[in-house]
Amino acid sequence: MTTDDQSATDRAATMTRQNTGPLGRLSLNTATTKALTLTEAVDGAARAGCSAVGLWRDRVHEVGAEAAGKIVRDAGLRVSSLCRAGLFTASDEAGIASALADNRSAVVEAATVGSSELVFVVGGLPASTGPGPARTPASDAERHSDRDLVSTRQRVADRIADLAPFAAEHGVRIVLEPLHPIFVADRAVLSTLGQALDLAAPYPSDVVGVAIDTYHVWWDPDLQAQIARAGAEGRIASYQVCDWVLPLAADPLLSRGYMGDGYIDFRSITQWITAAGYTGDVEVEIFNQAIWDADTDTVVRTVAERYTDLVLPYL
Amino acid sequence: MTTDDQSATDRAATMTRQNTGPLGRLSLNTATTKALTLTEAVDGAARAGCSAVGLWRDRVHEVGAEAAGKIVRDAGLRVSSLCRAGLFTASDEAGIASALADNRSAVVEAATVGSSELVFVVGGLPASTGPGPARTPASDAERHSDRDLVSTRQRVADRIADLAPFAAEHGVRIVLEPLHPIFVADRAVLSTLGQALDLAAPYPSDVVGVAIDTYHVWWDPDLQAQIARAGAEGRIASYQVCDWVLPLAADPLLSRGYMGDGYIDFRSITQWITAAGYTGDVEVEIFNQAIWDADTDTVVRTVAERYTDLVLPYL
Repeated sequence: MTTDDQSATDRAATMTRQNTGPLGRLSLNTATTKALTLTEAVDGAARAGCSAVGLWRDRVHEVGAEAAGKIVRDAGLRVSSLCRAGLFTASDEAGIASALADNRSAVVEAATVGSSELVFVVGGLPASTGPGPARTPASDAERHSDRDLVSTRQRVADRIADLAPFAAEHGVRIVLEPLHPIFVADRAVLSTLGQALDLAAPYPSDVVGVAIDTYHVWWDPDLQAQIARAGAEGRIASYQVCDWVLPLAADPLLSRGYMGDGYIDFRSITQWITAAGYTGDVEVEIFNQAIWDADTDTVVRTVAERYTDLVLPYL
Repeated sequence: MTTDDQSATDRAATMTRQNTGPLGRLSLNTATTKALTLTEAVDGAARAGCSAVGLWRDRVHEVGAEAAGKIVRDAGLRVSSLCRAGLFTASDEAGIASALADNRSAVVEAATVGSSELVFVVGGLPASTGPGPARTPASDAERHSDRDLVSTRQRVADRIADLAPFAAEHGVRIVLEPLHPIFVADRAVLSTLGQALDLAAPYPSDVVGVAIDTYHVWWDPDLQAQIARAGAEGRIASYQVCDWVLPLAADPLLSRGYMGDGYIDFRSITQWITAAGYTGDVEVEIFNQAIWDADTDTVVRTVAERYTDLVLPYL
């Protein structure tokens, strides 16, 4: 496919480009500036001195993957990752087929937009179709099936096996993102970095990797050891930073804050990431209504300042 | 101490008593009926056919520990556990001394009230004095110290070492309760059953044990293995059940629901508990404003019904 060949060339070019300057590894994720179009977000990131952007598929779909990649490159930036694939915990045939089709589209989009890193949020329990009350079961068997976390997690392993050859053919890595256990029911049955690495273990490190987002993993007593393991295995595909703020927002997904506004020890975690040999981009991905409502330049300037003060010294 | 000798005799008597009848292992935790006095809660539990009550210290302090124990025994019930000790993550000398004094009082209360199982919620980060915004640090060193999860967790180990001899002398077990990672900043830096068992490892199993509360641990990919380990080590001191309901309440502590109202797979977890050899009481501990506001007999009847339908078949 011409598009894929072209994007493979672009990827090679960006991967050999040096990360230079103080913000040479800083990437603005478009989720931090959710109200902006892709062009506006890319312009804001460039003005703040960022070197890359992490893209969500909704921003890519605005203009199409080829045009999206060009917008980023024309601004002199890299695409550090594409989000979100996954959501493939369905147990029925139609749900599985639909999820696989969408995930294959996401793989092609990642290759086209110029990122080798496609972030997977794996999905929640069958009892859930998103945040809200559990489905009322018709029978005891249905109740159990709807809530069976062990089987649901096995289906995640099965879907990775289904997708891995297709992703590998396109030069795109399946990047498994563990989500905070607060989201296990409705968003991701993948809850720890260790669990992600266990799922990745059967595959080469350039086929299945992991994303490490401080918000999701900072609480984990096994974090230092699992970051070291992820580094030794060559699987750290993305390091994402934002803070855990309290009180939680009504939608806990929006409870993320600027680094320094909450409880996370960025010094220790970033030192562990560095010790694990990670030299890639650092994405700032903050879902927060107040930040979405704020002036773009204030947001990107704050992102750059907090990164410089709290993360960069330990990279 | 006469009081302790007396309560030791009582404990021996209750521990040899057979758990009989369908609700022979059901314990109502007073947190489920927070609006009731101790006497009202004990009466309600007895009317519903429960065999035990789990006590919070606020209910015990209403009447004093000796009188509290008598109220429970006079109703023909056992005390399955006393809650809450812990909150001992302070890093300053005064804070440590104050926490140790309160914990020694709790040990004496447990012995006096007639329970060998004292549940510890260990406390959060120094940056937190409870739910709410993080403390604003005066310096980078203070920022790091306030958020240093590794050191805070080490202090938990240090305080257990301080307390263990005193607890052992009183025949009271330090029962470590891992809390859901949602609470790591402000309530408990003890986040997984595996971490609790690691902390317990240096001590005999009758000196340090663990509480397994479905709400806090259900998400853990390592849960089955750690329950088996806890059983093999003889450390399961309490099995507590309630459900994870969505959307989360504004105070996530109150987001617990009756078994069956949420996402937790009680069949699997209870089977794992049974396979681990646990034969003790099953406490129902639900923090939920709507349940606190409801009629007592409706609450205890619902607790008994849900227990009978969703937990008892797998014990």
